[in-house]
Amino acid sequence: MAKMRAVQVAQPGAPFELVERDVPEPGYGEVRIKVQACGVCHSDAIAKEGWVPGIPYPIIPGHEVAGVIEVLGEGVIGWDVGTRVGVGWFGGNCGHCEPCRRGQLINCQNIKIPGLNFDGGYAEAMVAPASGLVRIPDDLSAEDAAPLLCAGVTTYNALRQSGAEPGDVVAVLGLGGLGHLGVQFAAKMGFRTVAIARGPDKAEFAKKLGAHVYIDSAAEDAAAELAKLGGAKTILATVPNSQAMSQLVAGLAVRGVMVIVGVGSEPLQFSAMDLIPANRTIKGHPSGASIDSEDTLNFSVLTEVRPMIEVMPLEEAAAAYDKMMAAKARFRMVLTTGA
Amino acid sequence: MAKMRAVQVAQPGAPFELVERDVPEPGYGEVRIKVQACGVCHSDAIAKEGWVPGIPYPIIPGHEVAGVIEVLGEGVIGWDVGTRVGVGWFGGNCGHCEPCRRGQLINCQNIKIPGLNFDGGYAEAMVAPASGLVRIPDDLSAEDAAPLLCAGVTTYNALRQSGAEPGDVVAVLGLGGLGHLGVQFAAKMGFRTVAIARGPDKAEFAKKLGAHVYIDSAAEDAAAELAKLGGAKTILATVPNSQAMSQLVAGLAVRGVMVIVGVGSEPLQFSAMDLIPANRTIKGHPSGASIDSEDTLNFSVLTEVRPMIEVMPLEEAAAAYDKMMAAKARFRMVLTTGA
Amino acid sequence: MAKMRAVQVAQPGAPFELVERDVPEPGYGEVRIKVQACGVCHSDAIAKEGWVPGIPYPIIPGHEVAGVIEVLGEGVIGWDVGTRVGVGWFGGNCGHCEPCRRGQLINCQNIKIPGLNFDGGYAEAMVAPASGLVRIPDDLSAEDAAPLLCAGVTTYNALRQSGAEPGDVVAVLGLGGLGHLGVQFAAKMGFRTVAIARGPDKAEFAKKLGAHVYIDSAAEDAAAELAKLGGAKTILATVPNSQAMSQLVAGLAVRGVMVIVGVGSEPLQFSAMDLIPANRTIKGHPSGASIDSEDTLNFSVLTEVRPMIEVMPLEEAAAAYDKMMAAKARFRMVLTTGA
Amino acid sequence: MAKMRAVQVAQPGAPFELVERDVPEPGYGEVRIKVQACGVCHSDAIAKEGWVPGIPYPIIPGHEVAGVIEVLGEGVIGWDVGTRVGVGWFGGNCGHCEPCRRGQLINCQNIKIPGLNFDGGYAEAMVAPASGLVRIPDDLSAEDAAPLLCAGVTTYNALRQSGAEPGDVVAVLGLGGLGHLGVQFAAKMGFRTVAIARGPDKAEFAKKLGAHVYIDSAAEDAAAELAKLGGAKTILATVPNSQAMSQLVAGLAVRGVMVIVGVGSEPLQFSAMDLIPANRTIKGHPSGASIDSEDTLNFSVLTEVRPMIEVMPLEEAAAAYDKMMAAKARFRMVLTTGA
Repeated sequence: MAKMRAVQVAQPGAPFELVERDVPEPGYGEVRIKVQACGVCHSDAIAKEGWVPGIPYPIIPGHEVAGVIEVLGEGVIGWDVGTRVGVGWFGGNCGHCEPCRRGQLINCQNIKIPGLNFDGGYAEAMVAPASGLVRIPDDLSAEDAAPLLCAGVTTYNALRQSGAEPGDVVAVLGLGGLGHLGVQFAAKMGFRTVAIARGPDKAEFAKKLGAHVYIDSAAEDAAAELAKLGGAKTILATVPNSQAMSQLVAGLAVRGVMVIVGVGSEPLQFSAMDLIPANRTIKGHPSGASIDSEDTLNFSVLTEVRPMIEVMPLEEAAAAYDKMMAAKARFRMVLTTGA
Repeated sequence: MAKMRAVQVAQPGAPFELVERDVPEPGYGEVRIKVQACGVCHSDAIAKEGWVPGIPYPIIPGHEVAGVIEVLGEGVIGWDVGTRVGVGWFGGNCGHCEPCRRGQLINCQNIKIPGLNFDGGYAEAMVAPASGLVRIPDDLSAEDAAPLLCAGVTTYNALRQSGAEPGDVVAVLGLGGLGHLGVQFAAKMGFRTVAIARGPDKAEFAKKLGAHVYIDSAAEDAAAELAKLGGAKTILATVPNSQAMSQLVAGLAVRGVMVIVGVGSEPLQFSAMDLIPANRTIKGHPSGASIDSEDTLNFSVLTEVRPMIEVMPLEEAAAAYDKMMAAKARFRMVLTTGA
Repeated sequence: MAKMRAVQVAQPGAPFELVERDVPEPGYGEVRIKVQACGVCHSDAIAKEGWVPGIPYPIIPGHEVAGVIEVLGEGVIGWDVGTRVGVGWFGGNCGHCEPCRRGQLINCQNIKIPGLNFDGGYAEAMVAPASGLVRIPDDLSAEDAAPLLCAGVTTYNALRQSGAEPGDVVAVLGLGGLGHLGVQFAAKMGFRTVAIARGPDKAEFAKKLGAHVYIDSAAEDAAAELAKLGGAKTILATVPNSQAMSQLVAGLAVRGVMVIVGVGSEPLQFSAMDLIPANRTIKGHPSGASIDSEDTLNFSVLTEVRPMIEVMPLEEAAAAYDKMMAAKARFRMVLTTGA
Repeated sequence: MAKMRAVQVAQPGAPFELVERDVPEPGYGEVRIKVQACGVCHSDAIAKEGWVPGIPYPIIPGHEVAGVIEVLGEGVIGWDVGTRVGVGWFGGNCGHCEPCRRGQLINCQNIKIPGLNFDGGYAEAMVAPASGLVRIPDDLSAEDAAPLLCAGVTTYNALRQSGAEPGDVVAVLGLGGLGHLGVQFAAKMGFRTVAIARGPDKAEFAKKLGAHVYIDSAAEDAAAELAKLGGAKTILATVPNSQAMSQLVAGLAVRGVMVIVGVGSEPLQFSAMDLIPANRTIKGHPSGASIDSEDTLNFSVLTEVRPMIEVMPLEEAAAAYDKMMAAKARFRMVLTTGA
């Protein structure tokens, strides 16, 4: 049996280790992907640290995978060997639970998440359900595609479904892996785009990404600054900081919506009076199904949005992960296999 | 000048006092209403206690007013002397602020609230802007109409705009002044209606109002019980208890919405993970504009929804208010003038 | 191999013939249903007359099927032998076309329609994809469930997704197989329900179904009558008469929607000026996916909506079909197998 | 009394004539505008030819007016002398009809249209209700603002409210006064923008406006070409040609929407089967209220969209009108007063 290099976590809290593993074979409805690139995401910490039960250790992390279909399993329709594909957080849906039957695929009760429920993309090859596959456009490299499959689809999908209309004030809280994409997407969607982050040094960068306004939340009351602009119709909250999110609700316009995609350790707190008179809304948003990722990649090509990435070879996964966790990534780490 | 009886509050914290006042004259765009009935609402405490700045004391409270047009001011179009009308929390909009220009009348930045910004309905007559007027159908008494103009429109409007579709599970948290109307409305809208309150004794009452299911939140984990039903597509949260509202979010279905109409003293608290994977939403909902109240009254006649009320004469306003504040009203106190 | 009775059409235009056929075996992802009842629908004429290409003759018609699962094929998850199930027009989706990946299951490009793309329910048994199955509630007979799986879901689903809110004027054009269900559903959803049909004799029947208003379009200008009521927020057009539908658009309210579910032989005609100033909409609506049918059955039990049916044994399929085509059915013909 | 130059139509079918008129005085709730520029629109033909009853002849046409507030009438709040403002097709709403009370201002039953219900902008000054006023941003000239107040708001508003999401295929049918703006707006909103017009010579122009794809409907089957792109989520139909609009419905995607803003002399024709299986929608769209025009101007400044105009002095109104009616305007004629 053929062998491949992979980076695995043996048990909760164990270090990443480079190992040799059997190349996996696709089952019914699955394909094998030759992995070219895989993004490193904060959510990889869930498998790394074992924050949820049921992870099948040893596990290969990675849910921002880009590559090429190598083998089709039985019963796969609509996909061909040689097609460039990716897999993101949404690694496939079951088709028979209630959300699936309602067409709410991202809410599948048996959703399969690469690197968490099954082996992911920190490897030279991986197997994925066909329902989780994403076509990669010709004009997009595997390295650029990878982070768009999680950080990208999350922000793109949240923004396009937020209810804001072109010309509306849309604020993006945070300028990290998600935020630096959110600002680009918002600007290309025709929103009056406001970037909110800490420190004066990010102003220029925000403008370069397309932001019309930058608010330094370390120096100014960000909610008050938004209110001066008429309030934000949408605030896309990407930071893992519940307090920062909670404080910003007063910056929403009448009928404005705060879309939560970042997860802080503390609960979000809102006063009922912040919500009631102005019909304000707080809503959670997961990433998106495979077709949403496909839309994300196509929109990125159409409008020339790209992630800012640092590329490292697969065997340096541990270093890439540490850099990201230390918030030193500019702005997304991507591992490559050389394939 | 003609005189009238009225109940006023002389200053923040002062008792209700029955006084003789000049009958007011309508200005441009206003009418004078001969008051027949006026509901007593928890929000009357704002004027009674002076919880917000800018109240023009001495003030006559009351924002659930039903009566008959007596005099038309200059520039009033579309209303006639003798027409039965009411005024609710929404006592008129300015027409020139941004929300007004966007057609978001209830969010008017200069909204006029009877009994708070100008003299309300605890009197034999009051003056109101024509934009705040509500036609009362023939088949509805003034006493029944009054509470529908605040407790009624708030719940009716919140439910019809919640996004839930007929047949969906809709839960109403609380069985008081608002909740006992919310349950009736939800059932008549074709929702699978769940009433949630504390104590086993309310089960029969809830069923009588139309609830298909009753959950005793003192004895059961209400969120878990909702989840057993598949989760609620909408939870209408009418209780002034932030903790009870916060705990219920886990009872929302995928893409479910909690609509906040009750105001607790503590902040609402939500975990991001309660919102994100299942696309859940928390939204605030104010009452509704005058046309929304008109819709409420018409729907109540169409479907035979009525508030449960206790009627007392105007001069017993203080007793009626105390009974309500002590949570002993069954379920809404209404003052009558004898007109 | 076991045998069964079935009614088939040998070729386009051939008569229904009662034949003995092998009991079919379910393939991957399919189940076999022991058929108890099957509704007769106008759309059965498509297979009977061969109006579309690609029908696999000899074909067994029937897409309003109610029965019990007898055998599970390989790979079927979430369904058990002995469960009462139905299949409607939506007989299963492919899962891999673009609409399926977008969760728009009813728009599947490879949708499987019983009695058209594969053998349907005019038989003692049929095989269907699990994705097309509908759970039948205990409180609903097979005979009552059958027509709800096509005529029922079409009207229920169209109404709940029309954008009309409880209390709004909703008109149902036609009082036949679809219309007599549409009126019941509309009333139970809290709409101010208007039934429109030809002749004064149907007024009493319409009221019995729950209509608040009846308009005799043979005697009155139905659009003008609707306008007197303020205009309809939704008109559900169930008649196979394009002219009747086209003439009614002037009866729509501002921002009203005409939902087309009936198919006439002539084109629909609208003046741009009927649509533009009042923001009116014309939209087509197909039936619904299997979960929509499940919602329909559950709503019917919740609100006591039932189809009016005439039951005949399977072997009299030809007579039942003729009666329906002659518009003499009151209001839906259902075939039973005796199982 | 002060005098002004104006261009009026004395009676239906009469020529434009340059006359001296009294400068008008604003009444309650009105302002007087010193007119700087006024666009010439096809709809001016309604007053010119007397196509609707009730026009108060002699009438001054013009509903794309840009200028400066000169005088405030009584009761005007929120506007100042010297502010740059415009007035479009929506010249003010009554505030008391049902659509106004519902916040549907553009559907006001007593809508005031400049140049049709009252004297418009083909003059050195005009009086308008404050509810019809539109703030003009500093960065926009009066000449550029004028056509945006009718052709601009119509296309911008239709597109942002069409339901299409960024990245979706959006087609604009027609490349005239409306279409050349629609294509620019669509591209700036992040849509995959398709321009459809007759003739190969317009391809380059369409691309320059931002179209990603051009379809020459004289040489190709436009609906089939759209279908090759996956179908259009939105088709904005700007041409006064019912047949061209009707033929394009087959180019709509699943759940696609054709938005009608152009008015042809023949009825629109659609087959029910073109609408039903794919859940397609046809909807009419009027222009927009004053705040929608304000949004249009602000979006144009934000994204650098401008109308292509030919400027002529007021006294050449007849020549400008003739050029437009002969379809020789490139692409919008604007009259200037020299103020």
